[in-house]
Amino acid sequence: MTFSTVHDLETPSVLIDLERMERNIAVMQARCDALGIAFRPHIKTHKIPDIARRQQEAGATGIACQKVSEAEVFADAGFNDIQLPYNIVGARKTRRLAALAKRVTVTVTVDSEAVVDGIAAAAREAGASIKMMVELVSLGARTGTTPEAALDLARRIVADEHLHFAGVMMYPSDAAARPRLQAALALLDEAGIAVEMVSGGGSGAISQAQLLPELTELRVGTCIFWDWNSVAAGYCRFDDCAMRVRATVISANEASRVILDSGSKAIHSETIDGQFGYLLEYANARLHKVNEEHGYVDFSAYDDLPAVGEIVHIIPVHTCVVTNLHNRIYGLRGEAVEAVWEVAARGLVW
Amino acid sequence: MTFSTVHDLETPSVLIDLERMERNIAVMQARCDALGIAFRPHIKTHKIPDIARRQQEAGATGIACQKVSEAEVFADAGFNDIQLPYNIVGARKTRRLAALAKRVTVTVTVDSEAVVDGIAAAAREAGASIKMMVELVSLGARTGTTPEAALDLARRIVADEHLHFAGVMMYPSDAAARPRLQAALALLDEAGIAVEMVSGGGSGAISQAQLLPELTELRVGTCIFWDWNSVAAGYCRFDDCAMRVRATVISANEASRVILDSGSKAIHSETIDGQFGYLLEYANARLHKVNEEHGYVDFSAYDDLPAVGEIVHIIPVHTCVVTNLHNRIYGLRGEAVEAVWEVAARGLVW
Repeated sequence: MTFSTVHDLETPSVLIDLERMERNIAVMQARCDALGIAFRPHIKTHKIPDIARRQQEAGATGIACQKVSEAEVFADAGFNDIQLPYNIVGARKTRRLAALAKRVTVTVTVDSEAVVDGIAAAAREAGASIKMMVELVSLGARTGTTPEAALDLARRIVADEHLHFAGVMMYPSDAAARPRLQAALALLDEAGIAVEMVSGGGSGAISQAQLLPELTELRVGTCIFWDWNSVAAGYCRFDDCAMRVRATVISANEASRVILDSGSKAIHSETIDGQFGYLLEYANARLHKVNEEHGYVDFSAYDDLPAVGEIVHIIPVHTCVVTNLHNRIYGLRGEAVEAVWEVAARGLVW
Repeated sequence: MTFSTVHDLETPSVLIDLERMERNIAVMQARCDALGIAFRPHIKTHKIPDIARRQQEAGATGIACQKVSEAEVFADAGFNDIQLPYNIVGARKTRRLAALAKRVTVTVTVDSEAVVDGIAAAAREAGASIKMMVELVSLGARTGTTPEAALDLARRIVADEHLHFAGVMMYPSDAAARPRLQAALALLDEAGIAVEMVSGGGSGAISQAQLLPELTELRVGTCIFWDWNSVAAGYCRFDDCAMRVRATVISANEASRVILDSGSKAIHSETIDGQFGYLLEYANARLHKVNEEHGYVDFSAYDDLPAVGEIVHIIPVHTCVVTNLHNRIYGLRGEAVEAVWEVAARGLVW
């Protein structure tokens, strides 16, 4: 299938405004350049090697993936510096990780002895060398550990000939988490353990990175497309949002009830203020409910409803989860379809 | 890759208990047989031709899909009676619909003149014959129209040589919606328009179908796997739930904080009572938050945390949206992997 213009695309389709994406790439790279740190794009937002390549051409250093299966896709596409800021647990996964580490430079993170031990065993079995960072727990209280436990893990890593201690990772690396980072770095320094890399991440961390001079790099995904979450958090404006979902009105039988052909399979189920997406053409309409293939829009703020067949565009609440729903997405320059991207690392949960 | 037992599968993986699935298929078919109506499985729950085939072998009549692209997959797999209880809008989609209608029996639903006109134009252009039902709006106030407008649409359909008026559709067809259905049928009867099919649907409608003797068939999807939504609504028990997501504990560093390798990419983002899934092994733990690759579980109800590496199983809140996230799912008989199914119609939003 060839698509010359946006009008050739069915709905729902995920459209990427290439000018905005290019501007977002340039802005983020310039931000990291100004800070004197590396930018490591997290590919979770796009999952597409060609887009990561554009980020690298703009100056990015390596990439970050969340799962081994995603990293394999990007290694196959020629990326050779891949970070997995994730606890890789389970004998089959660690074996795949070790195999990958023999092909490209792989850096993982850990937050417990159990995770270190599993990866170390696989590295030993494969004769691989794996770079390893310790993760400090941050504001989100997700994965990560304390500075004291991080020191113990670092000692364990340093002592293993198949592991290479690479430094410290935090997510999110907001300024409020700096005391913990400083405590960990002080302990490592006292112990004489060299720290090559201090990896921060998160959209909110971009604007605070100057407050953490310890950082050597930032990992961010969403900043390439942005989304309604990002606008709501003050990270960007709607004019910076590069992704929109093109949808069609399929029913409009009552004064306030408009149904779109885009539901949770097209725009996912995350919400802001009870809304599942922001309608560009009708900012006061409320996309208040979704089923898999239906978006329910309350049009009570308007006197006239859009007609069946009318096309509307939705800024998603969260771009990363939208990309993961679609087999391909489309890069547009104006109305011209300039890129048809297969979402190569879509649905890779291992 | 071959998977002999469940222990060969990575996590997260979607597991289907074949005994429960077979029992669910038999129970639903028996229910419809007892009512003397047809069962038309909605494939949205599994999206897999081999599973639909098992439903047909048990006695089901045709299938229902939501989108033309899904119907194409099932037509290619040999299904020749496909209903699309959905307003198909847009020239490219209606053209594909008309092409499909020349290969297999296709029945669509409509709720406005605009939808009828679009499909009629495509049918005429292709020289196809398309069966068409009118949709009555039901309790969910989604798509559908009034009995009076349905009559007007039926007249319009009857008058078109490329369309065949097939009857009336409702979703959900709960007993409370019967007066509207009766009103529409009375109007059609007065007008001398024959109604071949009265198609009801929805999980809740199963137990109320005897209260709507007008129904000739039931379309239901979820009843093949069931889910936490269904248990909460009283449609089934946890012991009937055939789908679970196999997950691994990847972090457990604090008394109440356990992190799983399964987040919104594995179990989706729908909730019941603020929870994203039901942990089979720890019924009092609360899976209270997800990121794409992380599930946050509050274990404060337990004295001992599961260890990193421990496998747990999650009953999803909503099975249909989970299937759509995964490239393949696994059918288990006890611990043996008996089926590896590609989710053939996954991610088809057109």
